[in-house]
Amino acid sequence: MKVVTVRDVVELVQSRGLETVLTELAGYLERDFRRWSEFEKAPRYASHSKEGVIELMPTSDGAQFGFKYVNGHPGNGKLGLQTVVAFGVLSDVRSGYPLMLSEMTITTALRTAATSALAARALARPDAKTMAIIGAGAQSEFQAYGFRALMGITRIRVFDVDPAATAKFVANLAGQGFHVTACVSAAEAVMGADIITTVTADKRRAAVLSDNLVGAGVHLNAVGGDCPGKTELQASILNRASVFVEFEEQTRHEGEIQQMDADFPVTELWQVLTGAAPGRRTRDDITLFDSVGFALEDFSALRYLYDEVCQRGLVSTIDLLASPDDPRDLIGLIGRPRIPRSDAA
Amino acid sequence: MKVVTVRDVVELVQSRGLETVLTELAGYLERDFRRWSEFEKAPRYASHSKEGVIELMPTSDGAQFGFKYVNGHPGNGKLGLQTVVAFGVLSDVRSGYPLMLSEMTITTALRTAATSALAARALARPDAKTMAIIGAGAQSEFQAYGFRALMGITRIRVFDVDPAATAKFVANLAGQGFHVTACVSAAEAVMGADIITTVTADKRRAAVLSDNLVGAGVHLNAVGGDCPGKTELQASILNRASVFVEFEEQTRHEGEIQQMDADFPVTELWQVLTGAAPGRRTRDDITLFDSVGFALEDFSALRYLYDEVCQRGLVSTIDLLASPDDPRDLIGLIGRPRIPRSDAA
Repeated sequence: MKVVTVRDVVELVQSRGLETVLTELAGYLERDFRRWSEFEKAPRYASHSKEGVIELMPTSDGAQFGFKYVNGHPGNGKLGLQTVVAFGVLSDVRSGYPLMLSEMTITTALRTAATSALAARALARPDAKTMAIIGAGAQSEFQAYGFRALMGITRIRVFDVDPAATAKFVANLAGQGFHVTACVSAAEAVMGADIITTVTADKRRAAVLSDNLVGAGVHLNAVGGDCPGKTELQASILNRASVFVEFEEQTRHEGEIQQMDADFPVTELWQVLTGAAPGRRTRDDITLFDSVGFALEDFSALRYLYDEVCQRGLVSTIDLLASPDDPRDLIGLIGRPRIPRSDAA
Repeated sequence: MKVVTVRDVVELVQSRGLETVLTELAGYLERDFRRWSEFEKAPRYASHSKEGVIELMPTSDGAQFGFKYVNGHPGNGKLGLQTVVAFGVLSDVRSGYPLMLSEMTITTALRTAATSALAARALARPDAKTMAIIGAGAQSEFQAYGFRALMGITRIRVFDVDPAATAKFVANLAGQGFHVTACVSAAEAVMGADIITTVTADKRRAAVLSDNLVGAGVHLNAVGGDCPGKTELQASILNRASVFVEFEEQTRHEGEIQQMDADFPVTELWQVLTGAAPGRRTRDDITLFDSVGFALEDFSALRYLYDEVCQRGLVSTIDLLASPDDPRDLIGLIGRPRIPRSDAA
């Protein structure tokens, strides 16, 4: 089986440039969201424990099948581990054979940022200039690059409850053409922001953003509330906003709207991207992308890696699929078992 | 991530002996079935196409999480491909990190045969001497070795609609201490058989075994009917039999009992293995193990490979999980993106 390693993805980003990759990936995402009806859609499989969650996210467009394995463990940082690691597989539907195994830790960060920016381009005020980022973990810088690549955002106001995380964010973006302001509170971060991105990791009902901080015309990019019991926004914000989701059936359980009644109105993002439903109606609308991450996004990312890495480069392979000369002679791979002693004479 | 390759599994079987591996694996299976209540249980995710099915089979015991990717494509043989290929992953629930990636094509064949034999040991007449095998595909020889390892069965009567498959089976078992009779029909194969194993691949409602061929006291090991729309037994056989399943909720959709009403009585295998429910009640009972394959069996197999291969040998690793020095500094892996020209001065 062909393998796209962490190094392969790093080399793709280094050779092509992070913003180019995010822009290309957003193109794959937009094309796939626009052919929404072709996809097999089901909420992801989630195995919850007190420490976190392990998820499988499958989908298919009838020609290819893809899935991602991904975890979310907020306490992993204390163990020197990442909150989120992931890998994925793209397969050929006709034979059922896997085409590619790929790293998806970096790729998930890329596709999440590309999806956020794609949604914002469809929903935020087109003249948005400043973004607040609340939560300066592993995903935060990718969000900054994604919004610059797709929307030209260069002014970032950042806040994290851990000043060391904020400092890491500032250091990573220093000298990269951003104008970054480190803030000491969420309230300070959102001052003058046209877009507010929340991307925190705590697995609980939090309110990292309270209603009074959200002014007219703002676009909210709510990324961190993505599990049952894990939310970031005060519920009253949702009542003032037009809410957009990836896949309603999944988001009802996992997104910010888990705080609302089952008939709380939402619009699926693909409807806006195809023109089937309106996005922002007025300059003063509050738009909210209640993002939890959907299997289609990983499918798009896997297709992108397959086209741009697997089909072009010299990727490595692993001996993971048995291939007997006669497909019905699987036992032939083992060789002839040792003859029992009584028959060996 | 550590990888158990096809070669690693072949070497395990060659060094330890196929029947020893099947016996050891049956031990893992039995121990896991006996602690049934500890497992997370859900029907597998199945993506159906006209050519076949791709499935994800996850479960967890709260300490470890495992899943298998497996396909089933009956027409693959014509393309020189296998009907079934598979791989799997075992993870640590506390961190969400994968511990091992493993081949599971050979391993699925091993665990399927071990499960069949384990169920037969609990359900068939203890003095069973002869087994009929209907369907001589990739799984068939594994069934023969599994039943010899666990039940001492050495007399095999085999039939396949394709004489070449029957000939392959006979050749593979020649000189291995079995007494194999090649038959020209299912009716001939079942003559005098105490156990009848059906293991065909067609994805349709078939009746490879008709009611009149099933005599009193027989144990039926129905392996091939494992998908919606894919069955092997004439429905009237089920009405005469005591039916045992792995996980009722899944088998209702996938097993032979998809032909029956939703309240058709079945017993889950774990109940027999723990003594919570009876198995065979009389010598004349017809017992039927309506096997479709459940995620717990793959979990047991992954645990076995982890203990016996991963923890002992020098397995290879692949660069599939990013490991930044600071887990929150994922973007640091990419290095500093190129500075935009306007800022480079």
